Amino acid sequence: MNKQLKLADRPEGLPDASTWKLEQSEMPTIGEGEFLVKIHYISLDPAMRGWIRDVRSYIPPVQIGEVMRAGSVGEVIASKHPDFKVGDYAYGTGGVQQYIATNGKGWVKLHGSAENLPLFLGTLGMPGFTAYFGLLEVGALKEGERVLVSGGAGAVGSVVGQIAKIKGCHVVGIAGGEEKCKYMVEELGFDEAIDYKSDDIKAAIKEKCAGGIDVYFDNVGGEILDAALTRINRHARILICGAISQYNATEAIKGPANYLALLVNRARMEGFVVFDFAKDYAKAGAEMAKWMQEGKLKSKEAVFEGIENFHDTFLRLFNGEKKGKLVLKVSED
Amino acid sequence: MNKQLKLADRPEGLPDASTWKLEQSEMPTIGEGEFLVKIHYISLDPAMRGWIRDVRSYIPPVQIGEVMRAGSVGEVIASKHPDFKVGDYAYGTGGVQQYIATNGKGWVKLHGSAENLPLFLGTLGMPGFTAYFGLLEVGALKEGERVLVSGGAGAVGSVVGQIAKIKGCHVVGIAGGEEKCKYMVEELGFDEAIDYKSDDIKAAIKEKCAGGIDVYFDNVGGEILDAALTRINRHARILICGAISQYNATEAIKGPANYLALLVNRARMEGFVVFDFAKDYAKAGAEMAKWMQEGKLKSKEAVFEGIENFHDTFLRLFNGEKKGKLVLKVSED
Repeated sequence: MNKQLKLADRPEGLPDASTWKLEQSEMPTIGEGEFLVKIHYISLDPAMRGWIRDVRSYIPPVQIGEVMRAGSVGEVIASKHPDFKVGDYAYGTGGVQQYIATNGKGWVKLHGSAENLPLFLGTLGMPGFTAYFGLLEVGALKEGERVLVSGGAGAVGSVVGQIAKIKGCHVVGIAGGEEKCKYMVEELGFDEAIDYKSDDIKAAIKEKCAGGIDVYFDNVGGEILDAALTRINRHARILICGAISQYNATEAIKGPANYLALLVNRARMEGFVVFDFAKDYAKAGAEMAKWMQEGKLKSKEAVFEGIENFHDTFLRLFNGEKKGKLVLKVSED
Repeated sequence: MNKQLKLADRPEGLPDASTWKLEQSEMPTIGEGEFLVKIHYISLDPAMRGWIRDVRSYIPPVQIGEVMRAGSVGEVIASKHPDFKVGDYAYGTGGVQQYIATNGKGWVKLHGSAENLPLFLGTLGMPGFTAYFGLLEVGALKEGERVLVSGGAGAVGSVVGQIAKIKGCHVVGIAGGEEKCKYMVEELGFDEAIDYKSDDIKAAIKEKCAGGIDVYFDNVGGEILDAALTRINRHARILICGAISQYNATEAIKGPANYLALLVNRARMEGFVVFDFAKDYAKAGAEMAKWMQEGKLKSKEAVFEGIENFHDTFLRLFNGEKKGKLVLKVSED
């Protein structure tokens, strides 16, 4: 049988358990040109909150009754496909379920082992690529610049800060709580950390970003984006990767009141979507894998278990109870 | 004697007459390497409201007791300078006064006549250059794109829309009142006009920008910026030239709540300051003068008279009572 987590209802604000329902269905069968994947791990991403919102976006919303969309990694256990063989590991948008039959569109083979599969949902997957292309392509980061990153202990932000350090930049990370701040500085090598839960965010940015901000990589939006705008340097780039502070908002989103800092400083605020860089994923993955081997890039995955725990795990995206990439093991041995 | 308008007080909100004081001083004298300009016309610009605000910006604030800063055009009436001769016309930041002695720093000679001097404060001056470099350099406008411009009947916006038409684009202009809307379409050749005073701005943008927005040239900020964000196309550029709706605000500035449209559409919002393009002013001026000769680019100046009428004329920047470039004649015959 195939356990599947489906969207049951469109939530207002923070989803509760009734947003989803767990169902069992028959094991899918494969036709000619298809293969069957046993999904081991699914990725939990803040973007999921957007995918269940019924609005025009960069990707169609998940419909009620559909399996919840998720990036996934797994093992090919049956195949009538020329390129994917039994025993291969693969990444694709498999959804929150245990098995999927696919013709291979959007799937890539992974040169990994069963142990490091979660890595391909994190630093060597979408979050890592988001950091890499956002910072280097969209942000056009230059050596010696001053970088601020929010969500700095998260899947994307932790990679942003480390790549900026590799590129010889000064890095200030923002995260919630002492433990994450320690993690950013002591384990990831950031120069400074700001605890948004205890610091006066505006004063802290002023103090820790004393040389101003050349690149602000924004994962959170809201008040922190507004505070960052007050300290940008000339020709600064503000990369809009996400706005987790706003995703569960039931009131109108708060726009960045200090946006006229863009004018004064001849700066830009730019949004991007990692999918646009798909043709260069392999190159980026190879470079980041090399950095990992050299010990310059560290990866942390917070792995939880059990498809029935999807909702509780999902909430950790928003309540701050995780470090690094949030992953759920959905396979059963 | 030299009549000078000085800053008397820092206003909150819309300046009143007590913001300025008119004084008479001795005629300035010139030393070696200097020349004396009789100022004929001064430029009135929304940016002036920013210059009297005591905050860090792209230019230092005017101090209380100083002559109010203004772009100006005039005639050299005495000279001990090798490059500026008596009878030359010149542009420089002469301020709101009738005479200035200068060493020539920041002044340029004009190849015009007494009659067309106001043109060098408008279409062939800063507002024209702002339109030209904003649209073509910062905005990287491409043929056939869809352009929206606010303040479309103003000194900058009217040139933005006309240059976009010259470049083969579809142009929608926003202005206040039927007369200005008629002016944009019938005289300037815009494709569509939106009257922000009578139309539902969100519905009007949806209808008139049916093909979406590739470039939004924003002179006003506020609600119109927010509405424009809901209709941007992929890879759109939003050029932040000004925010006249916010300049006299006494409450906190309203940020663009729909800024996450930048993410979904991989778009950017970018600020710029025309001074950064100074080295290319001559080239731009030559190209725009050619367009004017060919009848492709029209210029309108709203000329008022009398330095003692500065305050009333200044208010026309914000109450909408002018079309084209607002200019004040300060010379007396």
